[in-house]
Amino acid sequence: MTRYCIGIDLGGSFVKVGLLNGDNKPGKPMEFPTPTVGGSRAVVDQMIAGARALMTKHGLTKKDIVGVGIGTPGPLKISEGIIIASPNIPGMVNVPVRQWISKGLGLPAVLENDANAAGFGEFLCGTGKGVGNMVLLTLGTGVGGGIVVDGKVVRGGHEVGAELGHMLVQPGGEQCNCGQKGCLERYSSATFMALRAQRVIEKGRSKSSLKPVLKKNGSLTAKDINAARKAGDELAGKVWGEACYYLAVACVNIARILDPEEIVLGGGMAAAGKDLLAPVKQYFKNMTWTIAKERTTVELARLGNDAGFIGAAGVAWQTFGKK
Amino acid sequence: MTRYCIGIDLGGSFVKVGLLNGDNKPGKPMEFPTPTVGGSRAVVDQMIAGARALMTKHGLTKKDIVGVGIGTPGPLKISEGIIIASPNIPGMVNVPVRQWISKGLGLPAVLENDANAAGFGEFLCGTGKGVGNMVLLTLGTGVGGGIVVDGKVVRGGHEVGAELGHMLVQPGGEQCNCGQKGCLERYSSATFMALRAQRVIEKGRSKSSLKPVLKKNGSLTAKDINAARKAGDELAGKVWGEACYYLAVACVNIARILDPEEIVLGGGMAAAGKDLLAPVKQYFKNMTWTIAKERTTVELARLGNDAGFIGAAGVAWQTFGKK
Repeated sequence: MTRYCIGIDLGGSFVKVGLLNGDNKPGKPMEFPTPTVGGSRAVVDQMIAGARALMTKHGLTKKDIVGVGIGTPGPLKISEGIIIASPNIPGMVNVPVRQWISKGLGLPAVLENDANAAGFGEFLCGTGKGVGNMVLLTLGTGVGGGIVVDGKVVRGGHEVGAELGHMLVQPGGEQCNCGQKGCLERYSSATFMALRAQRVIEKGRSKSSLKPVLKKNGSLTAKDINAARKAGDELAGKVWGEACYYLAVACVNIARILDPEEIVLGGGMAAAGKDLLAPVKQYFKNMTWTIAKERTTVELARLGNDAGFIGAAGVAWQTFGKK
Repeated sequence: MTRYCIGIDLGGSFVKVGLLNGDNKPGKPMEFPTPTVGGSRAVVDQMIAGARALMTKHGLTKKDIVGVGIGTPGPLKISEGIIIASPNIPGMVNVPVRQWISKGLGLPAVLENDANAAGFGEFLCGTGKGVGNMVLLTLGTGVGGGIVVDGKVVRGGHEVGAELGHMLVQPGGEQCNCGQKGCLERYSSATFMALRAQRVIEKGRSKSSLKPVLKKNGSLTAKDINAARKAGDELAGKVWGEACYYLAVACVNIARILDPEEIVLGGGMAAAGKDLLAPVKQYFKNMTWTIAKERTTVELARLGNDAGFIGAAGVAWQTFGKK
């Protein structure tokens, strides 16, 4: 009899649930809107209902399920199974999500932060398949990270590790909301890349083709910047290049510290594909050491939004399963 | 019956051997000069003879020993037990040290790089005792590192991880011998701190009290710089402060990436005690995030030169032992 773990990925817009069998083969996930009214109880009830719907769809009962992995945005108390807060999901404050879900489904459950879960998903079934050590950088609104060392997710001593967006890539540089100066997130996230371009334009110093786009839409996106860059816009080229340069600085540091087989670029910005990958790889090649052959490679993520539920289910296998 | 692992720490000047029991209690080590003639065979024979002398001294036979851990400078092929080269020990090129020692003693043996071994030693019996995650920075001729995550040494996917001295702390900065620009080692090692001061003096731009010291001795040491700094010398203060600043940058990055309970400063420069620790802690406090409480602490190493043999023996316990 094939047994499964259920992975639940809680996002600001959707709850995604899916199965993973003991050979790390994921099933097609189901998606449900994240409730916007009813507070934390409504959100968790939707997660439970989603998992039940998934089991029903596949004709599974509790005895077919080894455990449930829950990936959510944080900050979290992972080992206590508690969401401390979730900035993009109203009402999620001090929610014992693991306990509620475990009780609701009658199954053992484990909590993991969403970036770690996505990293573990890519490690198990995506770009990292077959390696022992992998680091995921998720590039979107912010920059997040997931670290896998010798096949296991690294949480850190206080469960706040893998905050790769808050690595200092330009000490003393741009002020970050976290209180530090010069964080990777301030140079290489979609949000701040757009803000950097916007700031130059608003100072009136640029003839960039992004100027009318900003005027029309009130803000810029990473996509706008990449499009302008490809059309030859100088400011866009500079900002995009800077984002890639600092990502490469982060990659050098990750390679020296953790020496993973692969550093994987994921998140919304990874949709830019080789427009992102090629310059990051080039900067990385130019900057990394020459005393030894650089063996860590930089790659694109493969699983897109599915990485989260897959990795959450993978953590459940690692916690509850005997494969 | 108490059983032991033997730890062997190979240095450029001395071979140190000592015991560690299953409760992580180390014995008093023995020290032998590292042979300078006779090549790799003479060096390894001394390591074997040292281990035998240790066993004889404590009235132990092979059946009392669980295994042997060997810590050596690298580069190494750790899992193959081979020293590729050891810059400070003539003739150590492609030496199957694990096999030779295992055969010579009739005991299972395991190889580890010396910085990882020192890190694991501090973790087991020194500053890191009782925590789950610890990072050691060894400050001396160069800057090395050892990383322990969830109680295990992190070697990386190609066994070249924890090269913490080659983290970029000033991207595009000082050219390092490794080929990168802006490595921690170029700012915070004893060697390069002294060189930085020397460079300023040789350009004739300084009235530093280090000038006559340099003239007299032909070179400067970290100790000279700290002494001059304490006597109010401006250049010495600047260089020492810079070394501490960049160490703090490295500490912020380590805290964000690995979130260890402790970052431990060891190696020769750690002999400066609070002259080193206090400014690093202050910079770290000023630079780290404020969005959450910083829970990673920066500490001094406690075991000095004993960390290496203790950690090597600890790796042997982890590899061969059932504690």
